[in-house]
Amino acid sequence: MYIGIDIGGTGIKGVLTDKNGKIICSGDTPTPESSKKIDKSIIALIDNLISESKTDKNRIEAIGIGAAGSIDRRKGIVISSPNILCWKKNPLAANIEKISGIKTFLENDGTVACAGFWWENEGKNFKTFIMVTLGTGIGGGAVIDGKLFTGQNGSSLEIGHMTVDVNGKKCTCGNRGCLEQYGSATALVKYTNLNLKKYKNSSIHKRLEKEKLTAKIIYEEAEKKDELAVKSFEYISFYLGAGIANLINIFNPEAIVLGGGLSKSSKIIIPYIKKIVNERAMTGMKERVKILAVKDQAIIPALGAAKTAMDRLKHIM
Amino acid sequence: MYIGIDIGGTGIKGVLTDKNGKIICSGDTPTPESSKKIDKSIIALIDNLISESKTDKNRIEAIGIGAAGSIDRRKGIVISSPNILCWKKNPLAANIEKISGIKTFLENDGTVACAGFWWENEGKNFKTFIMVTLGTGIGGGAVIDGKLFTGQNGSSLEIGHMTVDVNGKKCTCGNRGCLEQYGSATALVKYTNLNLKKYKNSSIHKRLEKEKLTAKIIYEEAEKKDELAVKSFEYISFYLGAGIANLINIFNPEAIVLGGGLSKSSKIIIPYIKKIVNERAMTGMKERVKILAVKDQAIIPALGAAKTAMDRLKHIM
Repeated sequence: MYIGIDIGGTGIKGVLTDKNGKIICSGDTPTPESSKKIDKSIIALIDNLISESKTDKNRIEAIGIGAAGSIDRRKGIVISSPNILCWKKNPLAANIEKISGIKTFLENDGTVACAGFWWENEGKNFKTFIMVTLGTGIGGGAVIDGKLFTGQNGSSLEIGHMTVDVNGKKCTCGNRGCLEQYGSATALVKYTNLNLKKYKNSSIHKRLEKEKLTAKIIYEEAEKKDELAVKSFEYISFYLGAGIANLINIFNPEAIVLGGGLSKSSKIIIPYIKKIVNERAMTGMKERVKILAVKDQAIIPALGAAKTAMDRLKHIM
Repeated sequence: MYIGIDIGGTGIKGVLTDKNGKIICSGDTPTPESSKKIDKSIIALIDNLISESKTDKNRIEAIGIGAAGSIDRRKGIVISSPNILCWKKNPLAANIEKISGIKTFLENDGTVACAGFWWENEGKNFKTFIMVTLGTGIGGGAVIDGKLFTGQNGSSLEIGHMTVDVNGKKCTCGNRGCLEQYGSATALVKYTNLNLKKYKNSSIHKRLEKEKLTAKIIYEEAEKKDELAVKSFEYISFYLGAGIANLINIFNPEAIVLGGGLSKSSKIIIPYIKKIVNERAMTGMKERVKILAVKDQAIIPALGAAKTAMDRLKHIM
């Protein structure tokens, strides 16, 4: 049995799987604001998974963790994270291994999302594809020539921190004009908030009488064709299209796969993204790339984290 | 024996090598403006290399061609090229193979530059590195986990057509704000030309009494600390730094290697590029990447083209 943990800017998800990727049980918990509290939440989640599955703890071979940030995968350290700012040279894998007593491996969150999609039947069709995870931030992963790509120290495919507007908005990573500032769920909410006054008849106003604005609300109103909500998705899709065109020109991949919470809006954003990609990506490459969304975005990164733990235990990667 | 041909926007270079990468002889010729004339120039260059080396034509095992553009490497077709506009679905490899009678393989120009650097001792130190070729346009190649990366159909690492300014200058590829529009030799000359009036005391004015402005002149005057020339290199290095920061965040590589004609100015541009990379690339990745220039940029792509022909003949790649 394996445990996979996926730590995002907003929530932590966990799965307990068998060696074939069958999910025995799953769970989640919010991401706390301090490093120690994050460790505690992870441990509580692991304990819950083990007790819920009625599995003997000794049968858990390894834990895999996917974390949003710049990491050293061999040392199991999160060096820094633009979305979880409390992490600074945090020995996450060692901490969890020490408390749980189970061998623990660390990967980047985009890498595990990629591994999860690849482990499922759908991903097996592609030899070279790029995963773009759209959530609080934007992450990514790549399978290249039939192999999961990790870069030199595990932090590859930081797609969210690809500059698309060289003199643009300041990013939490220190750079300017990062894709994350324009194409993430955070950017979607910001854009909608900034434009609320202009769209006096927007159905979003009514929603805000009872709730705080979220990407989910904007999605629901966009489905009902609210002008501001649709415009907001157009706004992020323009930047996502430009960023994805860059990835196509760089990787010449068979597929671009959207994951992360915001990929639930794929029916709205993919047509816009395809239009922009068609305008911007190079002839000879754009015709040969599929753009699709994962079917089960909520569970795929944690599942992939379990898979990377299994592969690393067996020295496959 | 193998022949390697490198076709750029301005010139065509050729080498004849043995199977160990020892260059027996080399030559070059300007890039003509029509597709048929390019074929003729390549054939004349091949004939010259064979006669100069006093090699029996039958001893040439294969020809490798590196071409600037979007290609289908398996079919040997150049689909389109932003710098050689006459090429549209041009069956380049088949044409050359038919006239020369020698098995011919096609790769992207950045890929062959990458292969050339990797074949030489210097490149062997790296398992994952990115080649950035700076010339009339900007190209690129990658070695990933110890393997030359070609993408799905051979057109990967079109770094020059990575958007760094989403609403920026229109590019010949159809996209906007491509790195090539800001960081190439062409962009260097354009910037200098546009600013000549502002810099009345620039030493470049004197050079232009006898010659047309070229990147070479700007380089020579920058070495003598001419303010406009230095400013022009700063301008392109700012964009190159932002583009290279993107590549570091995406590939988490061990090295970024500059090739192409403009890499001769590496002593001037690399310090600026490093400064911008330090400001823009992610903590945890920027500290672990070497930024260097190839030593023999003029010959490396043609050498790499010979290497890819050898490997493809042996089905190694």
